[in-house]
Amino acid sequence: MALSLLGATGSIGRQTLEVAAHLNIPVCALAAGRNAEALEAAARRFRPRLAVLYDEAAAADLRLRLADTEVKVLSGMEGLLEAASLPEADTVLAAMSGAAGLRPALSAIRAGKKLALANKETLVCAGSLVTAAAEQAGVPLLPVDSEHSAIFQCLQGKGEVKRILLTASGGPFRTWDADALGRATREDALRHPNWSMGPKITVDSATLMNKGLEFIEAMWLFRMPPEKIKVLIHPQSVVHSAVEFADGAVIAQLGSPDMRLPIQLALTWPERKPCPAPALDLTKTPPLTFQEPDLERFPCLGLAMACAERPETADAAVMNAANEEAVAAFLAERIRFPQIYETVSRTLAALSGRPGGTLEDILAADEEARRLSKACLSSIS
Amino acid sequence: MALSLLGATGSIGRQTLEVAAHLNIPVCALAAGRNAEALEAAARRFRPRLAVLYDEAAAADLRLRLADTEVKVLSGMEGLLEAASLPEADTVLAAMSGAAGLRPALSAIRAGKKLALANKETLVCAGSLVTAAAEQAGVPLLPVDSEHSAIFQCLQGKGEVKRILLTASGGPFRTWDADALGRATREDALRHPNWSMGPKITVDSATLMNKGLEFIEAMWLFRMPPEKIKVLIHPQSVVHSAVEFADGAVIAQLGSPDMRLPIQLALTWPERKPCPAPALDLTKTPPLTFQEPDLERFPCLGLAMACAERPETADAAVMNAANEEAVAAFLAERIRFPQIYETVSRTLAALSGRPGGTLEDILAADEEARRLSKACLSSIS
Repeated sequence: MALSLLGATGSIGRQTLEVAAHLNIPVCALAAGRNAEALEAAARRFRPRLAVLYDEAAAADLRLRLADTEVKVLSGMEGLLEAASLPEADTVLAAMSGAAGLRPALSAIRAGKKLALANKETLVCAGSLVTAAAEQAGVPLLPVDSEHSAIFQCLQGKGEVKRILLTASGGPFRTWDADALGRATREDALRHPNWSMGPKITVDSATLMNKGLEFIEAMWLFRMPPEKIKVLIHPQSVVHSAVEFADGAVIAQLGSPDMRLPIQLALTWPERKPCPAPALDLTKTPPLTFQEPDLERFPCLGLAMACAERPETADAAVMNAANEEAVAAFLAERIRFPQIYETVSRTLAALSGRPGGTLEDILAADEEARRLSKACLSSIS
Repeated sequence: MALSLLGATGSIGRQTLEVAAHLNIPVCALAAGRNAEALEAAARRFRPRLAVLYDEAAAADLRLRLADTEVKVLSGMEGLLEAASLPEADTVLAAMSGAAGLRPALSAIRAGKKLALANKETLVCAGSLVTAAAEQAGVPLLPVDSEHSAIFQCLQGKGEVKRILLTASGGPFRTWDADALGRATREDALRHPNWSMGPKITVDSATLMNKGLEFIEAMWLFRMPPEKIKVLIHPQSVVHSAVEFADGAVIAQLGSPDMRLPIQLALTWPERKPCPAPALDLTKTPPLTFQEPDLERFPCLGLAMACAERPETADAAVMNAANEEAVAAFLAERIRFPQIYETVSRTLAALSGRPGGTLEDILAADEEARRLSKACLSSIS
């Protein structure tokens, strides 16, 4: 196999390269947003045929940096689409953050690549399109999100599924009351108890929007109606998720909170190979507990669950776009923590019910949601 | 399908009949040891073609009780063997307690029946013979022990197995020190924290011999060398067991501590059907914890693990026979709790290394071990 990696310089991308090195998987394409220095280093190590930076100026810089190599450098959406459909790639790992990952993911599927999916927005925004395209192309969608990898592994067992138990750490604010949440800072939100991740997803973990996005992702990946997906707060992040079967048996996947495990599995499936991630020692884990999520303190989760009920609309794409803008504003310390929810909620209220059947519908909804949420954010900050 | 149930009046047997009623599975044979009243009631309800009591006098009583029915009544080992190989049975559920279940289990396998195995002594005493016979007959061994059912379910997933994690509640004496264990009474031992079971297995849970027997059972069922089976104390009995794969991922089966679940799965596999057992609510379970077993306070587990290292001998059969005798003496209040281990250990020391290759070897070792352990028990009590 050869791997094309989209989002090579982020947290998942770097860990994917570790796994690829460990497994001796050749890398034929590396793509990222704008970090020329990091992509140069990765390209020198893995010698892909193609390196892509979405940002034009950064790509020009990269072209100079790699002038002494055989690596071809491209830029922009065309570059990403070429990386996603490179003939020698049989697997594309999509780890770009945000809705920008949607078109490359579709392109990979249409080119017949196995799609290892770490970009949850792809399914959140366009689950219907993406799953239909994968079915048509006859290619598997291999989840990389640790929860979905867990569910995927659980579902290899047999039998009728009663429901999916999607676990959530509860994030850094799990025990904070509403007053404290009102005063939560950027630094507070970035202090995730269990997982080391990029800033956007770490804030999404703090609002539980991350679990909401995963809820929608699970609906599409596993073709489950929303009422068959149950979110459980599990602060220790040892049970990565589980499946309850018709007879009441629960099959769960447990592991260290180390993304290299689900990344590797998506690359080696249906085989499993030794992984450099530390082994789980259940005698050393804290007691494992499970609670209902609190939708009052974490209303973003409820918003996402409501969007999941309207899969024919572009609501999930609208919600996701507004959330990306709001989280960016929070990370820039332009708004307070509860205003993330306010922004998303107001944008969604204004744009709910738009059609979501085509890629154009979804991209238009995304654009409109960003415009509106930016206006909303300006009025706040 | 039609079911032949061996051990119909015990705890597993009664729950199996509940499951059979719930699933509308016809029962063609019912067998038990000596409880004519209970077997009459079951026979009147399920109308099997054959009812067997091992005890001759009890069988004569049963024959009178069922004189007004079409049910044929047999007795002794021949009766059990006939029940195990009845032409219309396609599944035999072997729930007899102790080494007496061995010959009927082999008979069922040789008659080409699917064998749902709740009698762990069958594999403990004669794992090599039984697994070879099942392979030769091309019939599946479906585990009913909750732990082994869990492992079986976990193994339906794909990939190379690193090891099995066999969980144990730790029994009623998990937190007792050596002094307290020396004074433990019959009543103390019968107070199992999580599972409602028969007296023999409940005492085995108190000594951890039950986990030792299951260790050997797992070795044969899943063809794992002893070093790839790890016992974990898990006092809440929610994780029924787990499998760690080559990449470090742990797939676990969780459920209510209700034997109807594994019984039903053994009868419906590879399908799963709704089960009357209460659903597991993870938000209401106590925190889940895991510890190393303490082989000093619970030396019976170590004895069994040592026997597992010598699968070519009859050591496991010797250990099991001595344990049956010692537990019976403890239940009769003839010996103290620590003397169960002493009896088994002394018997095993005297008889270790006997050949275990044939059924005759094993039955002879069982007999000799009972003789010797009875002598040992007389000298104690």
